[in-house]
Amino acid sequence: MGAPRGPLALICGGGSIPLVVAEAVRRSGRRVVLFPLRGWADPNAVEAFPHHWVHLGQLGRFFACARQEGCRDVVLIGTLLRPSIIDLRLDWTALRLLPRVLAMFRGGDDRLIGSAARILEERGFRLLGAHEVAPEILVPSGPLATKRPSVRDQGDIDKALAVIQALGPHDVGQAVVVADGYVVAVEAAEGTDAMLARVAELRRIGRLKTPAGVGVLVKAPKPGQDRRFDLPSIGPRTMEGVAAAGLAGVAVMAGASIMADPGAVAALADENSLFLIGVAGAGA
Amino acid sequence: MGAPRGPLALICGGGSIPLVVAEAVRRSGRRVVLFPLRGWADPNAVEAFPHHWVHLGQLGRFFACARQEGCRDVVLIGTLLRPSIIDLRLDWTALRLLPRVLAMFRGGDDRLIGSAARILEERGFRLLGAHEVAPEILVPSGPLATKRPSVRDQGDIDKALAVIQALGPHDVGQAVVVADGYVVAVEAAEGTDAMLARVAELRRIGRLKTPAGVGVLVKAPKPGQDRRFDLPSIGPRTMEGVAAAGLAGVAVMAGASIMADPGAVAALADENSLFLIGVAGAGA
Repeated sequence: MGAPRGPLALICGGGSIPLVVAEAVRRSGRRVVLFPLRGWADPNAVEAFPHHWVHLGQLGRFFACARQEGCRDVVLIGTLLRPSIIDLRLDWTALRLLPRVLAMFRGGDDRLIGSAARILEERGFRLLGAHEVAPEILVPSGPLATKRPSVRDQGDIDKALAVIQALGPHDVGQAVVVADGYVVAVEAAEGTDAMLARVAELRRIGRLKTPAGVGVLVKAPKPGQDRRFDLPSIGPRTMEGVAAAGLAGVAVMAGASIMADPGAVAALADENSLFLIGVAGAGA
Repeated sequence: MGAPRGPLALICGGGSIPLVVAEAVRRSGRRVVLFPLRGWADPNAVEAFPHHWVHLGQLGRFFACARQEGCRDVVLIGTLLRPSIIDLRLDWTALRLLPRVLAMFRGGDDRLIGSAARILEERGFRLLGAHEVAPEILVPSGPLATKRPSVRDQGDIDKALAVIQALGPHDVGQAVVVADGYVVAVEAAEGTDAMLARVAELRRIGRLKTPAGVGVLVKAPKPGQDRRFDLPSIGPRTMEGVAAAGLAGVAVMAGASIMADPGAVAALADENSLFLIGVAGAGA
């Protein structure tokens, strides 16, 4: 990779992960300039860094500000549930690229990311993954809390990884819940928190009959996913959702997933007797 | 198939499909004896037929009643979300088969069905599919309402069929929602109605940005699924859910899906300007 030079432009979607990355990069001694996306990024959270608000469609404004700040490297991170074209607020630069921008909004996320990378690269920028600028935010391999997965949990983890593997070509599903060999929930547009709330509700109304303490949440990138964008992430809220859903624990793909606030995550795992483990992929 | 002989034993889970099947079999001139499952079948709906209530674990009682009624052919139909072992109310016959019954409750539905079929066959019964005793309840091929799917809808249908195909080996997912090339929701334990309610909610809170009238619900059996049990089904409630979710229409696999109350379903499709079509599988 070589030592990255100059300040880093961090385009911030929603959630807490963009700030986790920004802080890690700043700790490494590199200047960070945030480009929070209006409607997605958290206004309070970005105050601690130099920043320029942009609409998702303001490509011209982004290119100009990033050049002015001396940024060549760009990281794009955070949730960015596909917006409507009207919310984009396309500027003139974006309008000139309109056919490509429209094409980006058809099909899955991988296509979106590939197109974004090409548009940036044609203009002299370089799209990097968060793990390239802040490797310590990646989930390491092995147990990360006191409890260990049981043999049954391990079977559920393997099954969930196989489901994520099978869905990969269709650009869907970074998270799956499996309980005692039974696929309980597959995440698509709703996000992990909503999927976990659904599992808790299925248990409450008696549609999920496996006892509390059985079942796993597994998060892993889609096989073949461009890892420069939208790596699966977990944080304290994930652990709260897993506890509320009555599962046994969480497995995330080591080296390819991001953890926000690892200390709080591990503490929540221990408080709720959940396992938390970084695992290798299913032949990925 | 040959002409089936003697009365038919219909073991009824939840939902409206068991009664649709019972009525179709009765119309064909064959006597039907219902075995509604306590906790699943609708008490009011079974009154119109001779019936014997059973708990899921009362295998001995079922075998005795079915023999007394002169039934050799058995159809098992309706929703049967996996119950807890305590809800089964195992009788002595079931207890003698306990290791096999317990094994049935690990792993996916296909295993459950295969085991149930073997246990019945060893006792001289024959497990049939609903489509074998009432072929007219199967969804036919081609358009079933006035509106036709657009080219975009057809692309979404193909993508959804491919996702169902990919999930087949993992015994999950008979229903998927795809909107403009994007997989919005994958059904697992929650059922189709709950999945459609989630899509409506994603639209309401602005997480699904495709305009109303874009997106399809596709239902198809898992490839390799034992079609004697739990074929995908649609009914009036499905169409109401699809309308509330703002989708363009519904595609179901022709010859391998069941429709309850076809007249009402088609009328609801037309009222809401939805397409409704029986399609061939994705290479299945």
